[in-house]
Amino acid sequence: MDTRERLIESARELLWERGYVGTSPKAIQERSGAGQGSMYHHFHGKPDLALAAISRSAEELRERAEVQFSGPGPVVDRITAYLRRERDVLKGCPVGRLTQDPDVMSDPDLRRPVAETFAWLTDRLATLLAEGRANGELDARLDPAATAGALVAVLQGGYVLARAAGSPEAFAQAVDGAVGLLAGHVRRGGE
Amino acid sequence: MDTRERLIESARELLWERGYVGTSPKAIQERSGAGQGSMYHHFHGKPDLALAAISRSAEELRERAEVQFSGPGPVVDRITAYLRRERDVLKGCPVGRLTQDPDVMSDPDLRRPVAETFAWLTDRLATLLAEGRANGELDARLDPAATAGALVAVLQGGYVLARAAGSPEAFAQAVDGAVGLLAGHVRRGGE
Repeated sequence: MDTRERLIESARELLWERGYVGTSPKAIQERSGAGQGSMYHHFHGKPDLALAAISRSAEELRERAEVQFSGPGPVVDRITAYLRRERDVLKGCPVGRLTQDPDVMSDPDLRRPVAETFAWLTDRLATLLAEGRANGELDARLDPAATAGALVAVLQGGYVLARAAGSPEAFAQAVDGAVGLLAGHVRRGGE
Repeated sequence: MDTRERLIESARELLWERGYVGTSPKAIQERSGAGQGSMYHHFHGKPDLALAAISRSAEELRERAEVQFSGPGPVVDRITAYLRRERDVLKGCPVGRLTQDPDVMSDPDLRRPVAETFAWLTDRLATLLAEGRANGELDARLDPAATAGALVAVLQGGYVLARAAGSPEAFAQAVDGAVGLLAGHVRRGGE
């Protein structure tokens, strides 16, 4: 891994663990093993490096979600597989946790990839739910956009509950609840 | 308001806006107008004052939720009123946001009120959902505990989505989705 890559990966880890406010340029240099000169050769400063790190995390989130979204099988199975996918629950969401960082939220450049990621995720799920409605899998009364918002919120809130409880169980329970709620809208044959 | 109260209220505001790491004893003194000596007269230090502030926010959250939970009408209406209640969405949840503070999560005394609040909220909603199932309002297949977890998660995740988007709309949409999902499990007369 070259120095630029090591800087981005170290920044991603630190942002995930400590947030933006809690991540100093010095800590990034120490974790990456890069010198101060090297960091400022590759990036203008902490915001510039953070933007590269946040954009990378956002891209990865989209790619991993797309694996389940574009998989085979009925729409509800794909959404369920996405919700139940293995996650590093107690670390929280590397993108979602940034919404609690006032310095990220107040910087339009840093907030943009966070906003775009959740907009993409909600739209993608809404498209799948609309597809399920159109092909008769799902109840025609289900609102695709609102339901998609609720499902993305369950995951983000599940992280919050798991961290509060100090156990991934709370995340799993919230996801079980969402899958159960969605099941009430699945049309069975002949209905 | 006496000095001790002013210190607690200032700490609550700052924890809500800036988080624990971003809140210095100096900032609390400045906002409250209390001198350094006065702060250390009332509290042992930042963790002690933060504990008083967090406990107060937790208590307030429970009291406000209980207004809807113990209100009149069918269980589903009370839960819907709770979900749709007016909130300062873009500021986020004063209790939930603390789960993103590594220094709060790693201190058992500071984490306890956060953990207890969400455990209480989930149990209280599960009891209501079980009541709704028992009195025939809700489908017997609905799992009260898991559904309660999903509903609490929708609110916490709704804050995350609203902050990401910079608009309370995303919160409202997630809540609409949750209410719509729950509606699929409401038994209508004669069913």
